[in-house]
Amino acid sequence: MTNDMSIKKIVEGIEPLDGKWIIKARERTAQLVMPTRALGRLHDISERLCGIQKTLKPKIDRKAVLVMAGDHGVVEEGVSAYPQEVTGAMVQTFLAGGAGINAISRHIGSDVQVIDMGIIPDLDTDSINGAHRLLKRKMSHGTANLARGPAMTRQMAEKAIVTGFELATDLFRKGIEILGTGDMGIGNTTPSAAIGTVVTGKKPEQMVGRGTGIDDNKLIKKREVVIRGIQVNNPDPRDGLDVLSKVGGFEIGGIAGCVLAGAFHSRPVVIDGFISTAGALIAHTLCPLVTEYIFAGHRSEEAGHGSMLKYLGIEPILDLGMRLGEGTGGALAMSVIEGAVHMFNEVLTFEEAGVADKD
Amino acid sequence: MTNDMSIKKIVEGIEPLDGKWIIKARERTAQLVMPTRALGRLHDISERLCGIQKTLKPKIDRKAVLVMAGDHGVVEEGVSAYPQEVTGAMVQTFLAGGAGINAISRHIGSDVQVIDMGIIPDLDTDSINGAHRLLKRKMSHGTANLARGPAMTRQMAEKAIVTGFELATDLFRKGIEILGTGDMGIGNTTPSAAIGTVVTGKKPEQMVGRGTGIDDNKLIKKREVVIRGIQVNNPDPRDGLDVLSKVGGFEIGGIAGCVLAGAFHSRPVVIDGFISTAGALIAHTLCPLVTEYIFAGHRSEEAGHGSMLKYLGIEPILDLGMRLGEGTGGALAMSVIEGAVHMFNEVLTFEEAGVADKD
Repeated sequence: MTNDMSIKKIVEGIEPLDGKWIIKARERTAQLVMPTRALGRLHDISERLCGIQKTLKPKIDRKAVLVMAGDHGVVEEGVSAYPQEVTGAMVQTFLAGGAGINAISRHIGSDVQVIDMGIIPDLDTDSINGAHRLLKRKMSHGTANLARGPAMTRQMAEKAIVTGFELATDLFRKGIEILGTGDMGIGNTTPSAAIGTVVTGKKPEQMVGRGTGIDDNKLIKKREVVIRGIQVNNPDPRDGLDVLSKVGGFEIGGIAGCVLAGAFHSRPVVIDGFISTAGALIAHTLCPLVTEYIFAGHRSEEAGHGSMLKYLGIEPILDLGMRLGEGTGGALAMSVIEGAVHMFNEVLTFEEAGVADKD
Repeated sequence: MTNDMSIKKIVEGIEPLDGKWIIKARERTAQLVMPTRALGRLHDISERLCGIQKTLKPKIDRKAVLVMAGDHGVVEEGVSAYPQEVTGAMVQTFLAGGAGINAISRHIGSDVQVIDMGIIPDLDTDSINGAHRLLKRKMSHGTANLARGPAMTRQMAEKAIVTGFELATDLFRKGIEILGTGDMGIGNTTPSAAIGTVVTGKKPEQMVGRGTGIDDNKLIKKREVVIRGIQVNNPDPRDGLDVLSKVGGFEIGGIAGCVLAGAFHSRPVVIDGFISTAGALIAHTLCPLVTEYIFAGHRSEEAGHGSMLKYLGIEPILDLGMRLGEGTGGALAMSVIEGAVHMFNEVLTFEEAGVADKD
């Protein structure tokens, strides 16, 4: 079975959300001892979870965040505020448990799994005195420079997606009930902006932002690089594999695979910010049904993220000006999703509570 | 010591936030291994907590929500979608652990304390088979109808505030590190809208909303009632006690007392939605410094809440279309605040992580 076959089979295995469970869930919500839909979007969240999990007892106790790491050849164009070595150094920080995603995952009670999808260094993970293991799925030592040609081959793009799919599938098989996507990769707002531009049809000016915090000069250069990358490669917006291979990244492909896995296995996936949503755009190009299984953790401060979410038709849960990546916004939103689940499962009905309903 | 003296002493005991700790906290934030202030508002939250707690190790493990309940004479004007008996019935639901605030408090690990600040029924709490105890601080069996005269006397308004102050003080003395405010009282969006109109100077049309879900006819009537209540009573916007006594409610006074207690004892208080923010407006009229100690849990769906928060100059943490009250929005936001604390305390510095900082 080739990778190409696999993606085809994945997509064929994805079904629309079961509306029957959502209707049943809405009926339960209507009985809860509170004014009609007084919890607003918390009701929408818990009801969609019921649809995804095909239950009236939704449960997301077992959580995991997959942090996909990759390096980017386009960094040689000078598009990032940080040196490329930071990708590997941050991966080591994840493994040592000292980064933002580790802190927020401890708060929400989530596992963190870190994947080398294609970073430049070959990390000797045995030497790391941390709680987490690095899974090695290295596609290559960083992508090629998308401003001068394709970031990777079509075969590599397929493999990156299938790898993400398999990693997520493995977690779901082990009992993970909700999955967050995360990313690490110096320079990866550049391919993400390129993907956003190509897939949504928005102008590069709207999609290219300051990433980790570049100045005005670098911002101008970054826009030029994205425009050039699209001109040089001419990706087909209707073909997610073409877009990913020409202007994407390995970790973005991995995230696209996670999103497809959530839909395939009917499990909720919480996407994080700009890079994760670029991955979701690739997955959406392959199978538009994926959005029914996605929760958007937050709206990132990165310019263009709001447009990406709008294109996908999903509302972010949080809007706190975050722009860290790593999966932090999605993980933080899981605590809100879990709050919605508690409400749905634990609030008494009017009848159980013996309270008079509306006049 | 009269109540009047007490409020005076409370206000005299409130000091501005210690800017020194916030500066120190911002210095730590700048060292965390992430792009400059990449967690957006989470940084502002953790740094303000450092200022309030006078520490670089903020801690909010021990949480409580005070749910203040009261009845309202103005309900006889037909301003609510639910019958007045629901106030007492919901108090019993809180005590049985079956309401929204109970579910969300279990999720975030918070205590819930329910206070009879002046509901109509005299509940025999010994008969309730629940986890929570009802604290009886009944001012009266509901307020008078604010559309026809003052809701309560000035002395009662003072006592309601001091009672809330003492209840919160007691919790802080027992080690509670963060306090949420909550409310229950059929009809209480009407006094809250009146307080909002008087204190902020906005038009009643902007402040009066649908509460628990009234139809257009009741909404028109509710606006007329608020306008009439303000005309009949002519409260002095600069005198919070006058406003509370004329167009307020007992639970709103109790919440104002909680807000003052947070500022007095330098502890963070998370306010919930429309009714809690009306309480905060009363407290702010007595002492504008209180806003430095308040976190606004969320923006309620209730019309006018956004204007109240804008008047106070505080940004809500969540914006999820919630309008339940009970303290639910504030309690849910505590999990975000706790996430911010984990980030501040646990993320390594660039130096500790051995990661290169920005070029």
